[in-house]
Order: sequence, then structure tokens, then C-alpha cells
Amino acid sequence: MKITPDFSKSTDGLIPAIAQDYKTSEILMVAWMNKEAWDATVAGGYAVYWSRSRNRLWKKGEESGNVQEVKEILLDCDRDTVLLKVNQIGKAACHTGRRSCFYRKIENGQETIISEPLFKPSEVYKSKHE
Amino acid sequence: MKITPDFSKSTDGLIPAIAQDYKTSEILMVAWMNKEAWDATVAGGYAVYWSRSRNRLWKKGEESGNVQEVKEILLDCDRDTVLLKVNQIGKAACHTGRRSCFYRKIENGQETIISEPLFKPSEVYKSKHE
Repeated sequence: MKITPDFSKSTDGLIPAIAQDYKTSEILMVAWMNKEAWDATVAGGYAVYWSRSRNRLWKKGEESGNVQEVKEILLDCDRDTVLLKVNQIGKAACHTGRRSCFYRKIENGQETIISEPLFKPSEVYKSKHE
Repeated sequence: MKITPDFSKSTDGLIPAIAQDYKTSEILMVAWMNKEAWDATVAGGYAVYWSRSRNRLWKKGEESGNVQEVKEILLDCDRDTVLLKVNQIGKAACHTGRRSCFYRKIENGQETIISEPLFKPSEVYKSKHE
């Protein structure tokens, strides 16, 4: 029997999936997976998520070319969170052009932007964002 | 005005929160936060989550003593995922006694356990698990 995550805990069948740089351990982004997205990721070897905004499967990088080659797949103790160790193709994972989506540092209720875009989103994306 | 995450995207007001070792960048666990959990974390300097199983605020380590001292707080581009860089007190974050909850490696549909418990849960937890 093939092991799959437990998609039953959320009402919408979506569980969080973290993409982590397989070399540096930097967390690149968090997106969502349902069974379809999981199956597509496992079968194809590239990260495929479920886009909540577009309500469809979304191969990360399908528009930008910044796909994520999956090097290792881990599940947590409860099998309801996915961790993908990936080789991020292209410079950046974030639709803002930054390497990581986690660029907002919060301190004393104030926000500091801690990284700069590596490309101009308008030159990479035709739609509003991935 | 104080910056807070956007809790509006999920129907239950919960967003994912990742705890990452602030020194090694190892991902320790993923749990959930609502506004109350966020406020308690920011105010107290230790990770507080919302327990979906117990339906109440849960200070991580309240039973085991394995609390998470928050060293840095980051939000992602959409401000709907929290990343806590933490100093994990005690040996382990996972209720199974392992350092990290992500110990299930999936390959070709099969699961391999890649780390061993550092303590016996029955000696640390009185309840089923944290």
C-alpha cells in the first residue's frame, strides 16, 4: 500500500506544504496540497500545489519557469503536513521576485523587509502573480 | 498600527506556523495560530499555538517543559503564514520524543523513519500527547 498524507483533518482537504532549499535549509515558501497535488508531485518530481486563489492545480513555476525539483519528501508525525526539500530553479521562489516568501520581519509590532527582489515580477509574470 | 497576520483566508481563522531552529535552520514542527495565539506569542516571547484537537490555546511545552523561545518572527509575502525562528528548550519538539516532527521520509510510496526518539514520551507526557 502506498503511503499518502492524511487529508481528512481540514474541511477543505488541503494541508500545508513547505518548500525548503535542500542545500541551505532556507524555507522558500508554504503552499497547499490536496490529494491531486500530492499525486502530481510524487509522479512528476516537481512541486505541484493547489492554488486556493485560482482553485486549480498549480505547478510552481509554470509561468515563471522557476520550478522546484523535488529532492526529498517528508511527512510529519501526524502525516498532515508535507515538507519538500527542493532545488529551486531560477533565482527566486516568491512571486515578488525574492528568493523566499518570508521577507517580512516582525518586531515590536513593526515590519521590516529583510530581502530585496532578484527579478522584476512584471518581466516574469503575465498574470497578477503565480 | 501594529502589524498582524491575515487570519481571514481560512474559514476557521487558523493559519500555519512553522517552528524552525534558529541556529541550524532545521524545521522542527508546524502548528496553527489564530489571533489569540499570535498575540500570546508576541507578548510572551514563547511559541503559543491553537490546538485543533483540544480546541484551546496551547503553549508549546506547557506539559513537557520543551518550550520554544522565539528569536525571530517572520511573515510571508501574503502575511498568511508565520515562521518562528526558535530556541527549542529540551531535546525535542515532537510529541514522539524526536527532535523534529518531520521524520517520515517518503520514497516510491514507502515510508522510512529517519530519526529516533530522544526521550520516552510516557515519561514526559501525562496526557496522550501535547
